[in-house]
Amino acid sequence: MILKIACSDAKGLIFHVTETLFDLNLNITRNDEYVDKSANQFFMRTEFDGDADHDFIKEKLREKLPADAQINITDIQENDIILLASKEHHCLQDIISRCEYGDLPAKISCVISNHNSLEIIATRFNIPFHYVDHKGLSRKEHESRIHEVIDQYPSDFIVLAKYMRILSPDFVKRHPQKLINIHHSFLPAFKGARPYRQAFDRGVKIIGATAHFVNEGLDEGPIIDQETIRVNHAYTPPELAKKGKDVERIVLARALQIVLDQRVFIHGNKTIVF
Amino acid sequence: MILKIACSDAKGLIFHVTETLFDLNLNITRNDEYVDKSANQFFMRTEFDGDADHDFIKEKLREKLPADAQINITDIQENDIILLASKEHHCLQDIISRCEYGDLPAKISCVISNHNSLEIIATRFNIPFHYVDHKGLSRKEHESRIHEVIDQYPSDFIVLAKYMRILSPDFVKRHPQKLINIHHSFLPAFKGARPYRQAFDRGVKIIGATAHFVNEGLDEGPIIDQETIRVNHAYTPPELAKKGKDVERIVLARALQIVLDQRVFIHGNKTIVF
Amino acid sequence: MILKIACSDAKGLIFHVTETLFDLNLNITRNDEYVDKSANQFFMRTEFDGDADHDFIKEKLREKLPADAQINITDIQENDIILLASKEHHCLQDIISRCEYGDLPAKISCVISNHNSLEIIATRFNIPFHYVDHKGLSRKEHESRIHEVIDQYPSDFIVLAKYMRILSPDFVKRHPQKLINIHHSFLPAFKGARPYRQAFDRGVKIIGATAHFVNEGLDEGPIIDQETIRVNHAYTPPELAKKGKDVERIVLARALQIVLDQRVFIHGNKTIVF
Amino acid sequence: MILKIACSDAKGLIFHVTETLFDLNLNITRNDEYVDKSANQFFMRTEFDGDADHDFIKEKLREKLPADAQINITDIQENDIILLASKEHHCLQDIISRCEYGDLPAKISCVISNHNSLEIIATRFNIPFHYVDHKGLSRKEHESRIHEVIDQYPSDFIVLAKYMRILSPDFVKRHPQKLINIHHSFLPAFKGARPYRQAFDRGVKIIGATAHFVNEGLDEGPIIDQETIRVNHAYTPPELAKKGKDVERIVLARALQIVLDQRVFIHGNKTIVF
Repeated sequence: MILKIACSDAKGLIFHVTETLFDLNLNITRNDEYVDKSANQFFMRTEFDGDADHDFIKEKLREKLPADAQINITDIQENDIILLASKEHHCLQDIISRCEYGDLPAKISCVISNHNSLEIIATRFNIPFHYVDHKGLSRKEHESRIHEVIDQYPSDFIVLAKYMRILSPDFVKRHPQKLINIHHSFLPAFKGARPYRQAFDRGVKIIGATAHFVNEGLDEGPIIDQETIRVNHAYTPPELAKKGKDVERIVLARALQIVLDQRVFIHGNKTIVF
Repeated sequence: MILKIACSDAKGLIFHVTETLFDLNLNITRNDEYVDKSANQFFMRTEFDGDADHDFIKEKLREKLPADAQINITDIQENDIILLASKEHHCLQDIISRCEYGDLPAKISCVISNHNSLEIIATRFNIPFHYVDHKGLSRKEHESRIHEVIDQYPSDFIVLAKYMRILSPDFVKRHPQKLINIHHSFLPAFKGARPYRQAFDRGVKIIGATAHFVNEGLDEGPIIDQETIRVNHAYTPPELAKKGKDVERIVLARALQIVLDQRVFIHGNKTIVF
Repeated sequence: MILKIACSDAKGLIFHVTETLFDLNLNITRNDEYVDKSANQFFMRTEFDGDADHDFIKEKLREKLPADAQINITDIQENDIILLASKEHHCLQDIISRCEYGDLPAKISCVISNHNSLEIIATRFNIPFHYVDHKGLSRKEHESRIHEVIDQYPSDFIVLAKYMRILSPDFVKRHPQKLINIHHSFLPAFKGARPYRQAFDRGVKIIGATAHFVNEGLDEGPIIDQETIRVNHAYTPPELAKKGKDVERIVLARALQIVLDQRVFIHGNKTIVF
Repeated sequence: MILKIACSDAKGLIFHVTETLFDLNLNITRNDEYVDKSANQFFMRTEFDGDADHDFIKEKLREKLPADAQINITDIQENDIILLASKEHHCLQDIISRCEYGDLPAKISCVISNHNSLEIIATRFNIPFHYVDHKGLSRKEHESRIHEVIDQYPSDFIVLAKYMRILSPDFVKRHPQKLINIHHSFLPAFKGARPYRQAFDRGVKIIGATAHFVNEGLDEGPIIDQETIRVNHAYTPPELAKKGKDVERIVLARALQIVLDQRVFIHGNKTIVF
């Protein structure tokens, strides 16, 4: 089981948590803590073995923790994820392949795309594919049709695997802490459209990718992971894009691993990653 | 000798250049070319051995190259550099140490600072130090006093080794292609003041540094080199700043190496680095 | 077209080559040279546009180049590759996916494996799969059966995409400069079996992967590309192996890109990569 | 204060430790744990504020921890270090500079070298320098003279900042867990002499550096930190050595930071680094 606690900081928190688990005969196998001193916030993630009811553990913990404590207990298990994509295949294929072989602990419920060119990939792996064309639709109508699909499937997380349309605030609000995006730049540099073109125009010597939770600001959500790679003057925008694909793939996969392992806390506009 | 050519692209340019050198009995030891197809610009840098007059080689090359060709020939030699610094010691000490032992092919003419705390470093290495306080002076007056010092010394390049004041457009214009700055972020992210604080507030998982030529836009000049390094949620702004120092040192030293080796072309707002 | 020249060094080589291409009205679009001074060897790779017969160009070049010159001209085209694999899916799936979408300029002729578990991957992508079991066979017999398959298909390169059996010297000799392997360590560290276990036992703080041409020494062939990634004390051997997969994938794909783009020279036990 | 505990694993260890600190009214500010399951060993490092006698805390902890527990409590303080060097200046200058400005929490007691060329560096920074020539002496005699110097100064750690002589087993035994070396390769590759020459001969595409505790096997002690950097075919051995200096500097400084912050446990032939 995985226990995640976020609360205001106080003396003795680790002691109180570990005492509770000890009294319940639960065995800690991994433990991480962090205190954000500027915000006076305490974060703790504990993996433990043993047999106990989630609610009973929570109740015991509540007796000892500050009143504002958010306590979350989950079994280590496979999550259900929905993938949204557009035309680019590399992140989609990569996640599907990792999930199929258990490299990522998730089951893909379905793939939704505003183009139909990636259907062949989903079909090969026997994953339901839904083509939801955006042409001739308002954003609201298009998102409404996407939601009709989403609602048919279980989903712990919705992963934007190079989904190239901007989501409306309404869409985002409906899935708090569930939407994960990969942006093809080292944010906050090169927000918005065509970041490789922007990178070319600026003449940078590194490019990168950023996986983040989606919030209402474009490319401004809490960053989960980032990576960069060296380039030089000779790269054209398409060559930057090609080189960048390897970084996008890796960063999105690493971010999903972190999220699926329950190793992330969202803390304001940032993440704590254990 | 090092030959640098920039001109509009045309068929046969490498042939014409290498023929000219061959006819003059000069032996090429290293050769690099690049064509920016979008701008139709050709760039070539050639190292060669042999004995010939610079002007004579240029004259022979002009006969065969496009009329817009910029031709530059230099002997491989030590450059004179002036260092500007403020309070932070790490880049200053690093460059001084590299120059003293020939790791960077430059002679430091003097160190100028708007604080006097780094005088001890310059003095230890027998480098003239000039304290030019900015207090009570307008920017124009301060820069005028700095120029009084600069004008006393030879300088091929002026290196801003964590000089924390913004230079006026007039100052910048007076030293075209000679001013090199180290900025403590992976530009274009976190321009301007306190980039580590900005990085902390944004919750990035990487930080970086950028060495660039200075132009009239703040932190917008042609980038020479960049590097990034991983951080995590636990870093406070001062800890980010401390971690970043290692990247700043390395990036500035690498950029100086590139510049001093005559391996860089400025091309609009970008650099070509061979 | 791509021209590759390797010969003993002499004055005027670039001039002679570019003159020849200029006289034939061929237009150089990219050019790279390198001189190994210790071996007195010259290497040059030139991409050029235009219309001329390969043999005629070679003949013209031979008139001017040293007698030992190896001259190679190829059209830029898709190569045929054969993939050998064992049980691990990640490199196989990655290469197949890249080739299908043109990210790697190669056509996969077939997949050969000593296990049948990966058949599903090849089948999904309509690539012929040949299961050549090694059980009960001598190495010679097994390799003979593999060759029966290889001989049915075109192949410019044979890629060992985590093929976990050691090839005999006879097998290697039969495919000079055609066999490419990915080894799951930063060679020369951790040659041979179970490199992640070796890495765990040694307590390294980085792991890596190496793509190399295969020669008769185990994991001793010319290195094409390498990459490393940070780990720490908490990684078990299986966790190192999982983390390492990302590096293996990327390094093998990069090495194939280099090889398929004709950007590599084999020079003794090393490679020159342009 | 910093508490470090290593003992055989058991249920409730974190609870027992945190309870003890809580009962003594000590406030944990940072906490890290790791269990090596294969060795059944528990490691914990705790930073805490408050006022208590070291021995009293230890006594209280002993009542609850396994009998084999190694308990170490230190105040956060500046350590004394002795630097051994030979001819190369870059690591020596780097450490001196970092210590002078508090970037590394250490005071350098003295510099000892078997050459006198680095005396000027120590002298500039008012650090005692001892030239202990090895010429004409047996290893035993030479080390004996070095010990005469070492014994005059306080030293928590002895840092081999590119000291190029092999230490005898007797020397090593005399300073258990106190000797830190920087080796100029990514160990275990290229042990022993002239690693950059070995790297050149092997044709690697990355080079690196390794900081490790010294034990009786040559370059085989527990690794504290490592880093690598990309190179290519064009680097000669001296160019590899020059490029490698930046990695050596950084890795040694990072390793010292880790050691001086009491963030490392030696565990057999490995380290645990928090």
